[in-house]
Amino acid sequence: MTDVWQSAMDHAVAVARKAGQMVRDAVGSLQKEAVMLKSSSVDLVTQTDQKVEELIIQSVKEKFPSHCFIGEESVAAGEVCVLTDAPTWIIDPIDGTTNFVHTFPFVAVSIGFSVNKQVEFGVVYSCFHDQMYTARRGRGAFCNGEPLQVSQQRDIQQAIIATEFGCNRDPETVDKIFSSLKRVVTIPVHGVRGAGSAAINMCMVASGCVEAYYEIGIHVWDVAAGSLVVAEAGGVLMDVEGGPMDLMSRRVLAANNRSVAERLVKEIDVFSVRRDDAAS
Amino acid sequence: MTDVWQSAMDHAVAVARKAGQMVRDAVGSLQKEAVMLKSSSVDLVTQTDQKVEELIIQSVKEKFPSHCFIGEESVAAGEVCVLTDAPTWIIDPIDGTTNFVHTFPFVAVSIGFSVNKQVEFGVVYSCFHDQMYTARRGRGAFCNGEPLQVSQQRDIQQAIIATEFGCNRDPETVDKIFSSLKRVVTIPVHGVRGAGSAAINMCMVASGCVEAYYEIGIHVWDVAAGSLVVAEAGGVLMDVEGGPMDLMSRRVLAANNRSVAERLVKEIDVFSVRRDDAAS
Repeated sequence: MTDVWQSAMDHAVAVARKAGQMVRDAVGSLQKEAVMLKSSSVDLVTQTDQKVEELIIQSVKEKFPSHCFIGEESVAAGEVCVLTDAPTWIIDPIDGTTNFVHTFPFVAVSIGFSVNKQVEFGVVYSCFHDQMYTARRGRGAFCNGEPLQVSQQRDIQQAIIATEFGCNRDPETVDKIFSSLKRVVTIPVHGVRGAGSAAINMCMVASGCVEAYYEIGIHVWDVAAGSLVVAEAGGVLMDVEGGPMDLMSRRVLAANNRSVAERLVKEIDVFSVRRDDAAS
Repeated sequence: MTDVWQSAMDHAVAVARKAGQMVRDAVGSLQKEAVMLKSSSVDLVTQTDQKVEELIIQSVKEKFPSHCFIGEESVAAGEVCVLTDAPTWIIDPIDGTTNFVHTFPFVAVSIGFSVNKQVEFGVVYSCFHDQMYTARRGRGAFCNGEPLQVSQQRDIQQAIIATEFGCNRDPETVDKIFSSLKRVVTIPVHGVRGAGSAAINMCMVASGCVEAYYEIGIHVWDVAAGSLVVAEAGGVLMDVEGGPMDLMSRRVLAANNRSVAERLVKEIDVFSVRRDDAAS
C-alpha cells in the first residue's frame, strides 16, 4: 500500500509543477482572459482555473483510473462534493484566483490526497515563487526538499496571525469577520497578514513565519493539502470553536501550537456557512 | 548637477544591495537577537536595524560629506527630523521590522534622496525576493531594470487595496482604522492585502499588482523612496483627505490613478498623528 501512495505523491508533485507552469504562462495573456464570477462579485474564476483542473484530473485519471476527485471547478460545474473512504484527489487548480487576476504573486496549485477520509499527502506549489511544499503523513513537511518547522512562539502577543476577508460581502458576515479581527489585533498581536491564498497561509504557518491562520468560508480544496503540511511541520489543526478540524466544515484554524490556537479560539466570532458536503 | 544625482543614485543602489545582504545574513542569528520596543508593544526594532542604518550613513558620508540625513534609527536616537532644501538621504534600514523578526519575506531597505524638499530618486530593495526597485525623477521606475507601470484599472470594485493595521493599539485609533477598512472592503473591492512594509506596498502599486495603498501613521523614511517609484510608474500620490501628499504628515495614499485615489479618500476615516517634523 505504502508504495502506491508514494507513487501517487510523486505524480502529484510532477503534475503540480506542470500546472504551475501553465498558471505562470497564462499571466502573459491575462488581459485577454475573461474573468467570471461565482458566489459574489468578488469571487472570481478564470478559464485558466478550469483548464488547470482539467490538466490535473486527466493526468491523474490516466495513471490512477480508480481514484475519486473533488475539484473546485468540477464542483462548481455540478459534481458532487462528498468525501468518501475511497482514495480521493482534492484539487484547487488556482488557490488565490483574485491574486492571479491581479498578478499578486501568492498563487498556488493545491493537491491533497485522502484515503479513509484522512489526508495521506499534500502538495502546495506556490508557482510564482517556485516553492514546492510537500507533506506525507508521518514523514514530515518540506519546502523544495528542506524540512519545515512551525514557530516555537507560545506567547500570542508575539505572534503574527494570518486571516482573510473572504468573498462574502453579506453585512452580517462582514461584521463578524471584522469583530473577530479587531479582537485579534487588540490582543495585541505583532501583526496580521493575509496572502490571499488559504494554502499559502497554511504553508506560512508550517514555515514558521506566521504563528497561526484562521478562516471561515474556505473549502475542502483550499485546505486539504495545507492542513497536512501544517501538521507534519509540528503544528496543530483545530475547528474555529475548538475541537477537531472537520475538512468539510469550511472552517479552519491552523497554528504552531495548542496554546496559540486555543487563545485564538476565544476571539473568533463564528458565523454559519453551508458545509461543502451539504445535500443540495 | 544631473551627474551628481546619478552618482548618488548609483551609490544608493550599491549600498542598498549591501545592506540587504546584511539583513539576509542576520536572519540566521535571529534567535539570539534582542528585539526591542519603540512606540508600543508591537513597534519592534532590532540591533540589525541600527547596524544597517549605520552602514548606509557611513558609506554615504564618505562619498558625499556635505549631504544631510533623516534615518529612522537616528531619529529614534534623538536626531532632529526636519526636511530642508539641502540634499538629504531619507533612510529606512529595515522597512518591515516585524516581518524581519518573524522571517516573513517582505522586508525592504528604503533610501530616498531629496533636494529642495523634492524626491530626486528612490531605491527600495526587497531583500528576500532580491527585487531592486529604482526611480529617478522624470526618468521612470524599474524593478531589476525592467520598467514598471501601474494598473490601468479605473473601477475600484475591480481593485485590490493595500493597507496596514499599524503599530498604534490606542482604542480610538484602532476603531478608525477598522471603520475605514470595513468601508473599503464593502465598496466592495476585489480584496485587501498588506505586505507589512509601506515601501513594498508602494512598489506593489507601482508594479500594478495592487491598485492603491493608504495608511496613516507611517513616517517619511517609510514612503520617501516608494512615493517616487509610484509616481514614476504612472501613479498618483495624495493626502488621505485629498490634496497634495505631504511627506512629513505621516499620511499616504498612493494609487494607480486619480479616479481610484479619489474614491478611496471618501472611505478613509482620519485620525490625528504627530507630524514627523513637529517641534519636540
